[in-house]
Amino acid sequence: MRISIYTVGGTIDKVYFDARSAYEVGSPEVTRLFARAKTTFDFAVTEIARKDSLELTQQDRDTLRARVATDECSWILVTHGTDTMTETARVLAGIPGKTIVLTGALEPSRFIDSDAPFNLGMAVAAVQTCAPGVYIVMNGHVFDAAKVRKNLQTNTFEEID
Amino acid sequence: MRISIYTVGGTIDKVYFDARSAYEVGSPEVTRLFARAKTTFDFAVTEIARKDSLELTQQDRDTLRARVATDECSWILVTHGTDTMTETARVLAGIPGKTIVLTGALEPSRFIDSDAPFNLGMAVAAVQTCAPGVYIVMNGHVFDAAKVRKNLQTNTFEEID
Amino acid sequence: MRISIYTVGGTIDKVYFDARSAYEVGSPEVTRLFARAKTTFDFAVTEIARKDSLELTQQDRDTLRARVATDECSWILVTHGTDTMTETARVLAGIPGKTIVLTGALEPSRFIDSDAPFNLGMAVAAVQTCAPGVYIVMNGHVFDAAKVRKNLQTNTFEEID
Amino acid sequence: MRISIYTVGGTIDKVYFDARSAYEVGSPEVTRLFARAKTTFDFAVTEIARKDSLELTQQDRDTLRARVATDECSWILVTHGTDTMTETARVLAGIPGKTIVLTGALEPSRFIDSDAPFNLGMAVAAVQTCAPGVYIVMNGHVFDAAKVRKNLQTNTFEEID
Repeated sequence: MRISIYTVGGTIDKVYFDARSAYEVGSPEVTRLFARAKTTFDFAVTEIARKDSLELTQQDRDTLRARVATDECSWILVTHGTDTMTETARVLAGIPGKTIVLTGALEPSRFIDSDAPFNLGMAVAAVQTCAPGVYIVMNGHVFDAAKVRKNLQTNTFEEID
Repeated sequence: MRISIYTVGGTIDKVYFDARSAYEVGSPEVTRLFARAKTTFDFAVTEIARKDSLELTQQDRDTLRARVATDECSWILVTHGTDTMTETARVLAGIPGKTIVLTGALEPSRFIDSDAPFNLGMAVAAVQTCAPGVYIVMNGHVFDAAKVRKNLQTNTFEEID
Repeated sequence: MRISIYTVGGTIDKVYFDARSAYEVGSPEVTRLFARAKTTFDFAVTEIARKDSLELTQQDRDTLRARVATDECSWILVTHGTDTMTETARVLAGIPGKTIVLTGALEPSRFIDSDAPFNLGMAVAAVQTCAPGVYIVMNGHVFDAAKVRKNLQTNTFEEID
Repeated sequence: MRISIYTVGGTIDKVYFDARSAYEVGSPEVTRLFARAKTTFDFAVTEIARKDSLELTQQDRDTLRARVATDECSWILVTHGTDTMTETARVLAGIPGKTIVLTGALEPSRFIDSDAPFNLGMAVAAVQTCAPGVYIVMNGHVFDAAKVRKNLQTNTFEEID
């Protein structure tokens, strides 16, 4: 069993740099989180970007799609900022034979009470159990990526009726 | 969306009681872990036992099966000790129309580097994406419960060929 | 035994607000950290400000000094951002009969690997063991506040020779 | 600045071994906790034992006293189980020119809400600010080791009137 991971940044990877009193996107947390989870599957991590998802460009998304489309692995997991996750999901639509799952976090992985390990666990399960297509897993739901939005009032993802 | 949770104890719920220098199974951690994960689905938690899984009796398992079989919810999640998880899974086999997912942890949920939140996230995704049947999610894998064992040497779950 | 705590903000109290992808100073962490530490002394918490220490004004410092000078408690603990901690310490100098200890954190208290609980523990010990005066505790040292600076290269506090 | 650390085990160093469903004293946590606290002082760690403090023998304590008495460092920090901390403190009494501070934890250092980092911070401050003698720091207090007991009802340390 093998999962191919792509990271573009987002809150999940945010760390704090006291030297600049700044809070920036750091290196991918996914490897550390897999180690904590004692996972035994094979995986590769490809870092596409290290950005707040509001700063992601069409070129970033095109690069991601091109890399995913040519990936030999049929199970694709993308860690991503939450604000434009649905946008990136749309760009990834229509790649045949691949189950693509996007997730991220509302609190940085380094926080004691972050949702990152839970969300990543959901993504790892969904990528191996769902039919080919694009999915977003957040707030305990496996959403069809075409039928979900981030509600900015409640700061949670919800299905579009 | 609704998930019915049953807890029987195990490492995931182990807490430390300094007064007795003892390390015992405490109240279910699942509610706290869902809160951290900012989940938005409905769930109910039913505590069947609070035991090391080596101490679970046939009667405990029969009680669990009876409760699950009559549960109106079709999505069932069981948190369980790892040593006899496969045994309990066998007892839960053959209940029609229900997706039953068992999970637990190799390190107590209260530990900084516990696998509990990741495993619970996997279980929540698997219960809503898998066909009716019984599954065990551990070490990053969604296993058919009839084809998995705990390898005591490596202390990980592995598929039976 | 009683300690009077004053909080002005700083990294120690920084939390993350995903809704704004912003990282802001939240409510004082000190109470939560004392609970984790199972402390049994009496304490009161007075929130003077909720700012990055670079944003603290002379008026904020004058207010703090006035409150401390008239505080009936002789043991004063101040949680503060690290960038201007020495400046505030100078403003607090010369208040007779009071042991005043300033501390903070290089990583937010909510981070798994924050220095906050350790630093706060140091401060609680120093305030009850040091002679009246003003002290800064950071990086494992109890510094005379008049003889310490933050080294921006190493991002650590060091004694001034 | 230099601190000499001696470890004898206790709850602070307890880790969980799922393979045996057992909960045992592991390697000293002190180094990991100092790293998290970003300490900049020199220290050496000497492991005397790895035991529940109820299992410590007179010989263990004699060995500890002999090592401490001949240590060139005047600042001595001992991490110890809480149940017999006062007993060991008595054995360490009367060593001239040394400030000896004992501490431990009511919850293992690896727990998210452990008191270990706070207690260790207290000990590091107390060892550099207190006059020569033997002290116990627990529950937010710096106790004269000759005037403190562990209250088994409240599971906290309290001064003996």
